[in-house]
Parts: sequence; structure tokens; C-alpha cells
Amino acid sequence: MSFSPLVERLMESLRVLPGVGPKTAQRMAMHLLERDRDGGRRLAAVLEQAIDQVGYCRRCRTLTEEEVCALCTSARRDDSLLCVVESPADQLAIEEAGGYRGRYFVLHGHLSPLDGIGPEDIGLDQLEARIAEGGISEVILATNPTVEGEATAHYIAAQLSPHGVTLSRLAYGVPMGGELEYVDGGTLSRAFNGRLPFRGD
Amino acid sequence: MSFSPLVERLMESLRVLPGVGPKTAQRMAMHLLERDRDGGRRLAAVLEQAIDQVGYCRRCRTLTEEEVCALCTSARRDDSLLCVVESPADQLAIEEAGGYRGRYFVLHGHLSPLDGIGPEDIGLDQLEARIAEGGISEVILATNPTVEGEATAHYIAAQLSPHGVTLSRLAYGVPMGGELEYVDGGTLSRAFNGRLPFRGD
Repeated sequence: MSFSPLVERLMESLRVLPGVGPKTAQRMAMHLLERDRDGGRRLAAVLEQAIDQVGYCRRCRTLTEEEVCALCTSARRDDSLLCVVESPADQLAIEEAGGYRGRYFVLHGHLSPLDGIGPEDIGLDQLEARIAEGGISEVILATNPTVEGEATAHYIAAQLSPHGVTLSRLAYGVPMGGELEYVDGGTLSRAFNGRLPFRGD
Repeated sequence: MSFSPLVERLMESLRVLPGVGPKTAQRMAMHLLERDRDGGRRLAAVLEQAIDQVGYCRRCRTLTEEEVCALCTSARRDDSLLCVVESPADQLAIEEAGGYRGRYFVLHGHLSPLDGIGPEDIGLDQLEARIAEGGISEVILATNPTVEGEATAHYIAAQLSPHGVTLSRLAYGVPMGGELEYVDGGTLSRAFNGRLPFRGD
């Protein structure tokens, strides 16, 4: 015996969500059907609407239901700085950290030739066109500190170097509040090589 | 800064799912919008359909999109046994354990006067009517071994006793494969009081 076909299909559909296995899917389906049908109905409607309407910002490629996102249209940002990130989630993390007041460009991934993901797939033609427009003095390459993120940063650096913009990359080092004992060797040796003068006052 | 209004609404809507907090909701929304729009669209459609069409079986009250569920219509079940459970998930657990071949009755909850959940809310009038039809010799009260489940079992027992059916309750005791050291005191003393003769062969 199992649940009815439609309930089983609901459980199966819920498994598209990341980190949701069969047991969690069952718990979610039961919760929605037994205790929160209104919430479930709302979720179905919003999900459908978001998938239909949310696209990429024409200017920075972040996720938005507008032509151009709020951050790109904001008059209070510094047009001379452009921060390149792999995902909207990375962009949000940088915004929440505070301090950066420039613009963004979202790749939605990184170069991955084995998966057939080339420069156009992550919008690098559009990025280059944006730099060619002029007005940007520094491009901060904030792709992830992973092999793929590094490779993507190097590719972009090579592509943009003819345009004469300053290129930078986020600093590597030990994370704040971490304990050296638990920092991986790669990070630790990077932090050693990048050590900074210290004034003990 | 945050995501666009529609993306934020999607994240908020995903939080109706049990165990999904803000971080998980963000991860789910990003996954659906960035990597699996087809799966998300399917989820939205199936969720809407399930919420509209899945109701209670007219006979046993389990979740089903049919008038009467497959288990109630099956000719291969024993009509003289009726097992009363709190939820469809409990029913499935008993079915998966195997061995029981009778029918079910699903309460969708337990008596909870403080929350305003009385006998009619968990279908006890319908249960009594079903017993009154005759043909059932034993009712197995498989409500949860919790305070509320016990109270509900006692209430049902009192309600059904005039009908002259045998009433039973699942055995209490130490779980198979468990270690006594980790069994709680209440369960252990129940298991002691309910100890069974043992033939050492």
C-alpha cells in the first residue's frame, strides 16, 4: 500500500527541492494537505508566478521580475565600481555584509567546459560590452574561491585587460572568528603569503 | 538590499513547508529559479491539483482523490478488523510493517479540548456509525502512545463499548533492536509490567 496516486505525485514533485528526500517529502505533503492547505495553495500560486515572471535584469543579470532591477536603477550607487559574482545569493551576501556601494554583474554560474558552459552562457559578452561603454574604473572579481571560480576570474581578467580597467579579487585569508587549528592548509598558506604589516597599537 | 519583491514572496511562501527556515527557503528559491524551473512549474501544478482534489475517503477518512480509497474498495482485506489511527502517515507505517490485513479508520488528529478539537472533528460519529453497521468484531486503537493519543483511545473505547466489539490497543514495550540503557523509564516500567512468559528453546 502507498498513498493515493495524486498524493504520491505530490511527494515526488516536492523532491525537486534541494535537500528533500522521500521522508521529508512525505512530511511536507502531509503537512500541506492536513494542516495548511491555504499556505500550500499560496505557495503553488506564487511559485508559478515567480517561475513565469522572474527573469534576468537586462543590465546586471540578477534575478528580477522587472526589466532592470532596483539596484541597477538606484541613483545612490557608485557607477565606477562593478562587482562580478556567480549568483544572486552571493550578491545578497555582499550587500548584507555592507560597505560596498558599487554596481553588480551576476554570472549565474562559472565557466565549466566539461558541462558545456562557455563564456556566453555566463554573460561574458554582455559584461565586456558593459565595460566598453566606459565609466567603470574597477572590476571586482568576486567569484567563489574554488577551482572553477578562480578559472572564471582568470578568464574574465584576460578578456577585460584590453579595456584598461583596474581588476581586483577578494582577499584570501583566515576567516574572522575562526580558529587556526580548523583552517584548511590551502587557506592557511595563502594567509601566510599574504601577511600584512601589523602595528601593535 | 534584498531580492526582488516576487523572489522574496516566493521565499516567504516556501516557509509554509515544515522545517524550512529563511536560509533553506532562500536556497530552495534559488535552486528552483536558477536550476530547475521545469521541476518548479511541475511542483506548482501538482500542488495546486492535490490541494483541490485530495479529500477524505468517504469510508475511512484517509487522504484520497477518489470517493472511496483503494484500501477500502480492496476485496482482499478482512472486514472484521478495523484499525483506528491518527493520521494517514501512521496508516502507511502500519501497512509497511506488514501483517495487518484489516481495514482502517483515520482520525486526522486526536481529541484536544484546549484546541477546540472534539469528537466530531476527528470523525468519531462516523466511526460509531460504521461499527453500528455491524460486521466488525475487533477495533484496534492504534492512536499514538502519547497523553493525547491515550485519552483519545479511552474516549473511543467508552463510546464503542455498548456495541459489543472487542477493543484492543497496540502492545507497549521496549522497541526491537533498541538498547535498554537508552529506553525511557516510562516505557521500561510498562515493559516490565507487561512481561511475557518465555520459553527458552
